[in-house]
Amino acid sequence: MNPQALAHEAIARCQQLARYSEEAGRLTRTFLSPPMRAVHEALTGWMLELGMSVRTDALGNLIGHYPGPHPEAPLFLMGSHVDTVRDAGPYDGPLGVVLGLALLKGLEGRRLPFAVEVLAFSEEEGVRYGVPFLGSKAVAGLLEPELLSLRDAGGRTVEEAIRAFGLEPAQIPQAAYARNRVKGYLEFHIEQGPVLEALGYPLGIVEAIAGQSRLEVAFRGQAGHAGTTPMHLRRDALAGAAEWMTLVEREAREEPGLVATVGLISALPGAANVIPGEVQMSLDVRHQYDEVRSLAVANLITRAQQVAQRRGLELAYQTRYEQPAVPCHPGLCDLLAQSVEAQGYRVHRLVSGAGHDAMIMASLCPSSMLFLRSPKGLSHHPDESVWPEDVEAAVRVGLGFLEKLAESS
Amino acid sequence: MNPQALAHEAIARCQQLARYSEEAGRLTRTFLSPPMRAVHEALTGWMLELGMSVRTDALGNLIGHYPGPHPEAPLFLMGSHVDTVRDAGPYDGPLGVVLGLALLKGLEGRRLPFAVEVLAFSEEEGVRYGVPFLGSKAVAGLLEPELLSLRDAGGRTVEEAIRAFGLEPAQIPQAAYARNRVKGYLEFHIEQGPVLEALGYPLGIVEAIAGQSRLEVAFRGQAGHAGTTPMHLRRDALAGAAEWMTLVEREAREEPGLVATVGLISALPGAANVIPGEVQMSLDVRHQYDEVRSLAVANLITRAQQVAQRRGLELAYQTRYEQPAVPCHPGLCDLLAQSVEAQGYRVHRLVSGAGHDAMIMASLCPSSMLFLRSPKGLSHHPDESVWPEDVEAAVRVGLGFLEKLAESS
Repeated sequence: MNPQALAHEAIARCQQLARYSEEAGRLTRTFLSPPMRAVHEALTGWMLELGMSVRTDALGNLIGHYPGPHPEAPLFLMGSHVDTVRDAGPYDGPLGVVLGLALLKGLEGRRLPFAVEVLAFSEEEGVRYGVPFLGSKAVAGLLEPELLSLRDAGGRTVEEAIRAFGLEPAQIPQAAYARNRVKGYLEFHIEQGPVLEALGYPLGIVEAIAGQSRLEVAFRGQAGHAGTTPMHLRRDALAGAAEWMTLVEREAREEPGLVATVGLISALPGAANVIPGEVQMSLDVRHQYDEVRSLAVANLITRAQQVAQRRGLELAYQTRYEQPAVPCHPGLCDLLAQSVEAQGYRVHRLVSGAGHDAMIMASLCPSSMLFLRSPKGLSHHPDESVWPEDVEAAVRVGLGFLEKLAESS
Repeated sequence: MNPQALAHEAIARCQQLARYSEEAGRLTRTFLSPPMRAVHEALTGWMLELGMSVRTDALGNLIGHYPGPHPEAPLFLMGSHVDTVRDAGPYDGPLGVVLGLALLKGLEGRRLPFAVEVLAFSEEEGVRYGVPFLGSKAVAGLLEPELLSLRDAGGRTVEEAIRAFGLEPAQIPQAAYARNRVKGYLEFHIEQGPVLEALGYPLGIVEAIAGQSRLEVAFRGQAGHAGTTPMHLRRDALAGAAEWMTLVEREAREEPGLVATVGLISALPGAANVIPGEVQMSLDVRHQYDEVRSLAVANLITRAQQVAQRRGLELAYQTRYEQPAVPCHPGLCDLLAQSVEAQGYRVHRLVSGAGHDAMIMASLCPSSMLFLRSPKGLSHHPDESVWPEDVEAAVRVGLGFLEKLAESS
């Protein structure tokens, strides 16, 4: 099969998997939910056609093994997740799994100097238990045992869900790969953002997964009558918040690669004729380099303090979440770049602003990601899509990458 | 009785009336609610002690008549409302009624060259039917007949409420005063704002009741992932709203007497990791002069259009409410100013940012208001209060005012 045909098959397979859903009429497929069995059956069939052996680990990750030259050969891993958000599109996750299989099909039976495993991670989105990356954490040997006691909305623990799927929680430790056997990891994923589309490039090489700080920020002033309180006697929490939000945007624009977002805001008491006495906001800050992000957060807090002081407001803030940045492996990035160039595409390196399994896998082995352009930047939405030419480009680059990896082994 | 004793009695009477409530443990007394009967009984008793005749009109306004020299003598009116907001304080409204009675008591039986009527308006706050000024509108002959069909939360119409209170809706037209008999109207009211306290003055002469524009303003951009969308590719509706809110505040600060308030804000979809695609806000603008207010609203819309255009956002706005400004009567204001000065207080003229019965009464007759300082600017709150010295000052100024009015008659 040629790369174009492999790409069309990969797209058709994503669309087929999108029919396996918990909800009628839309795609929702959470960790170890019933439709996950149908996904496993389909993937197993496709893996067996390629001469792979197939297993499911104790956390529900489905893994196909494409043998190397001998049983002790190093392993190269490819994959992504097969769980989805609610009302999802077909490509976020599954595309990385079926593209792994497409590359192996493109080898037409040829063996590489290493074994290849394609992983369909059981959980990445954090929908069922509120905690993401359960699948890749088990593979990387990072799954915290206390996570097994988390309960879903129906009161069922992770441990119970594992048993209900016919798996054995006691075998979770065996899901972890031996560090010295794994050569590396490659994940194909849609960008979920507008950068590649804006540049007109089909593919992007992920240099790093951005670190993230999430804070809650509140200004407190004095509620008052909108008619009877002159401007100079106000302590308007929303006017202070507005001034600060303009500074958040300005600082983020001035620092290359930084993103800062206020996504949630509420003003109290919340009436058209009452000056807001309190405003609560979220602040989300991300950057490739942790020092840049930490400095930006500190600057934004200083700005908030200055705004509060000048306006006679009280400031309260709390850090809710901190996630360090994860660089991708420079050697694998370079290999991807050479393959992109060799196939005649423009090389573009970018930072992933969203978390991915590759971030967890980076603690196990050299880790890399290739992004495919997201039309309109859409994801987590039924209209999420890919361009067939971009998927073909990913197949060409992936095959070139495996070739170069084989040469360098 | 001296002014100090009259002031203490007025305060005690407000506190007594505050016990007549629909709700246990807090003061809530809406239009024609059961506790209104107890208010009427108490007021009737105090009026009869002064030799007044007492009637209740068809809209539930209680009116005491203090005779003039002959039955055809002109009428001078004083009063305020006796309904309250939910969880109210004791002074917003009732103070104006009991101060009217205090002034008549201060006359110690003496007749003036005009009759005086003290009105306890049945409805000003708009709580029960969502529409304010029902009482004073009937007195001014302005009550729109369609208001009688409004329904309260229990499904009872205004007309039914009137009948249930033992009154006859067909007699509403007779509640309207004959225009040529009414000499003027004076209302004492707490300021409900911080201006007099900030200046250190007990009293303020209301020059005008500000006009008001209320709008809904929305910016629409593009929701997006807070991690994967670089700053330069965003169309963040909240960042646009923040920029505009800083301009709203700046423009209002630069125009003397103008107030502009964003009291309500909501950002959609409303998640910490999603760039807001839409923001909806309220805008409340008030000023003494309608032209200044209209120009300010137009300017703020132009600013919003500029912000939207520069950021690739859509702007939508709608005017929800327009209330023209109402000037108080210059002659009565001057008479009040002379009385304030004669009693040794500093004359301060100010604009009421809130609506009052005096605004409706201005269409019937020369209308005037005297504000009493509001400690901490508080009103519509159980901690609403007055300084006894300020009430005494109001009694002294009120007596002086009636004296001067009698001299000029």
